[in-house]
Amino acid sequence: MNAPVSPFVSAAQAALDYHALPTPGKLGIAVTKPVNGPEDLSLAYSPGVAEPVLAIQADPADAYRYTAKGNLVAVISNGTAVLGLGDCGALAGKPVMEGKAVLFKKFADIDVFDIEVDTKDPREFIDTVARISPTFGGINLEDIAAPACFEIERALIERCDIPVFHDDQHGTAIVLCAGLLNALELQVKRIEDARIVCLGAGAAGIASMRLALDLGARRENLLLVDRKGVIHTGRDDYASLNPEKREFAAEPSERRTLAGALAGADVFIGLSGPDLVRDEWLMLMNERPIVFALSNPVPEIRPEVALKVRKDLIMATGRSDYPNQVNNVLCFPFLFRGALDVRARVINREMKIAAVQALAALAREPIPAEVLAAYGLKSLPFGPEYIIPKPLDPRLRDVVAPAVARAAVASGVAQLPYPPPSRLHTA
Amino acid sequence: MNAPVSPFVSAAQAALDYHALPTPGKLGIAVTKPVNGPEDLSLAYSPGVAEPVLAIQADPADAYRYTAKGNLVAVISNGTAVLGLGDCGALAGKPVMEGKAVLFKKFADIDVFDIEVDTKDPREFIDTVARISPTFGGINLEDIAAPACFEIERALIERCDIPVFHDDQHGTAIVLCAGLLNALELQVKRIEDARIVCLGAGAAGIASMRLALDLGARRENLLLVDRKGVIHTGRDDYASLNPEKREFAAEPSERRTLAGALAGADVFIGLSGPDLVRDEWLMLMNERPIVFALSNPVPEIRPEVALKVRKDLIMATGRSDYPNQVNNVLCFPFLFRGALDVRARVINREMKIAAVQALAALAREPIPAEVLAAYGLKSLPFGPEYIIPKPLDPRLRDVVAPAVARAAVASGVAQLPYPPPSRLHTA
Repeated sequence: MNAPVSPFVSAAQAALDYHALPTPGKLGIAVTKPVNGPEDLSLAYSPGVAEPVLAIQADPADAYRYTAKGNLVAVISNGTAVLGLGDCGALAGKPVMEGKAVLFKKFADIDVFDIEVDTKDPREFIDTVARISPTFGGINLEDIAAPACFEIERALIERCDIPVFHDDQHGTAIVLCAGLLNALELQVKRIEDARIVCLGAGAAGIASMRLALDLGARRENLLLVDRKGVIHTGRDDYASLNPEKREFAAEPSERRTLAGALAGADVFIGLSGPDLVRDEWLMLMNERPIVFALSNPVPEIRPEVALKVRKDLIMATGRSDYPNQVNNVLCFPFLFRGALDVRARVINREMKIAAVQALAALAREPIPAEVLAAYGLKSLPFGPEYIIPKPLDPRLRDVVAPAVARAAVASGVAQLPYPPPSRLHTA
Repeated sequence: MNAPVSPFVSAAQAALDYHALPTPGKLGIAVTKPVNGPEDLSLAYSPGVAEPVLAIQADPADAYRYTAKGNLVAVISNGTAVLGLGDCGALAGKPVMEGKAVLFKKFADIDVFDIEVDTKDPREFIDTVARISPTFGGINLEDIAAPACFEIERALIERCDIPVFHDDQHGTAIVLCAGLLNALELQVKRIEDARIVCLGAGAAGIASMRLALDLGARRENLLLVDRKGVIHTGRDDYASLNPEKREFAAEPSERRTLAGALAGADVFIGLSGPDLVRDEWLMLMNERPIVFALSNPVPEIRPEVALKVRKDLIMATGRSDYPNQVNNVLCFPFLFRGALDVRARVINREMKIAAVQALAALAREPIPAEVLAAYGLKSLPFGPEYIIPKPLDPRLRDVVAPAVARAAVASGVAQLPYPPPSRLHTA
């Protein structure tokens, strides 16, 4: 059982062994204060613990002073949309939520409790999360199917006094839009003029299109496409579409299929499924097109295929083995780091845009040698093969978190200044 | 801010500083697997994490293999009965719940998420906890006011497939009864004959009397006393009493006050409030009486007062600065350790009794020199001043956890054998 993993073990078995050995799972608890004798115990527990209890009862903000709340985020899922695997149930999602906790800790030193909620009813889910929210300093919703995820996030933002963020929506949208801004710059296009087609009208598709609008895209230039084709107001099922899809419904036109939508488009964003885009359709796109084929693990179209038919293309995927990986880990640890550092009440539009701009700007900076080495690369200049920072770039925390924190302060949702007063003289 | 705590700082300030410095709170997250590069990340998160997800979806028991669930206990409270402070609210209870997590980790290497639930409605509380229960391998309910705690625990035991245990009830009852068995032995009395008076009919009082019955006490020998006197079927408010109090209602008699109840009693158990017992009442008790005055921090009667009027007394309190401290930490870490080790579905009567007997037996063994040293003692033989083990005794884990685990196996609620097969040849 404890033998080292053989190089001949399959990738699947290696993943299972990683999770099972030498102890189950990936997380444990660390006690952060000394507990070495009766005196320590009398401070950590009875009778000393009564003092912080009374302090918090008198002033709830003292919970940030005397408990782990201020650096503690809940990663919460009901398992209805786990990875690309669909509805796996609450329990089966737990390895993913623990994995998310690992990433929060590793990249931003944020402590995470993963919470698996066994209900598919949005009202029950909302009630449950709202009631346990005093425990935490922030809530990261994860792997919750659309359209319930929209109602759930909206209601929890209203009911909780801490930031609530659905990463599958906004984390994806932020990283995607950072890459998109850089791709547009390289292709000498303006977001205001770009004709954008998004295949996939779930959590990530809706949030990405909303964020693109916030960044200057024009609604009339957007086409959202679901399984039944372009979403438009003349579609037979229009009345039964969820409000988020209707929000992006186009006027009826001849462009009703994905191929029709791609004709004359500048940008294709795929947040859908494997191999849904044919190479000949790329020929219909405008010159210097941008294709983000983000379905994982199999993209909507493979880069080697796409780049064969369109050499003027800039391409991104969700995979680490191609250039330009759109990976949420570029955002969520640092976005929460910034939000927690200034005790933001919410994660608002300004903070999301600040994260987009910080990520986009970082990719335009020269990449440090240590980051190149981590990826076995000799050089990686800003250009078609490098429009998005690399996940192991240590500058991410230093640039994204402060940008988010400052945006929170500037937009009036922060409860602490930034930088914190105590750091003013040491920065 | 980071200066060492001065010996002149008040105890209250020392407790606050302990909680606040150098970082807020007492808990953090530890990542238990390597995450040093892209390969590790691809195992811990996407794409590798899909493998344990699929395995758990196929067989829910695999959650114990691939996630932290099997060693993870939730300490959950709504803050309605925090320490002796009453209803402080969910948030203000957080330092206590974190403290409990510290004790679980320190004494039994069990990982704990503290969860503060913001509702006083028992139904809402039950629904909330049941829904998040897939996250955990066990649930420790804490600081929930009676009588709601009875309904809550009963419902959650029914709804959850993991052990649910309300420590304020059963943890107290187990340690108290362990001390009681030893005190009875020293006083040459049998529990079957002992006349027992319990002042306090809340969570701990009810659970302690129930456990005393399980250990052989006779119902007709018990008197339960609340603020209004002895609970009996002829009392004006009998019909409005909660079912748990009515369960212990005596036949009407002349013994209607605490003083009346103590006349001829062998055992007094106080789980009530400070200074509620007068020294002259102790004179009414039988010869060789037993007095457990467990109100904290101020007992129902102080040992120095009680022992002055009854030199034939054996006495216990809830305080660490008197002999014979009834402290829940003697039980809950090891009880859960035993339950988790065999994946018990519940914590049943047999397991509680096994814990009582293991604790009582341990106190009758010679105490190791290292334990004496930890308390600055030269010797401490089994006797009136030592009827209950000391919290820092390392043998607790070695004797209580296996006793509980074996009782779970013997009573048919364990899902794993004990000792585990892999340890059979190394024990």
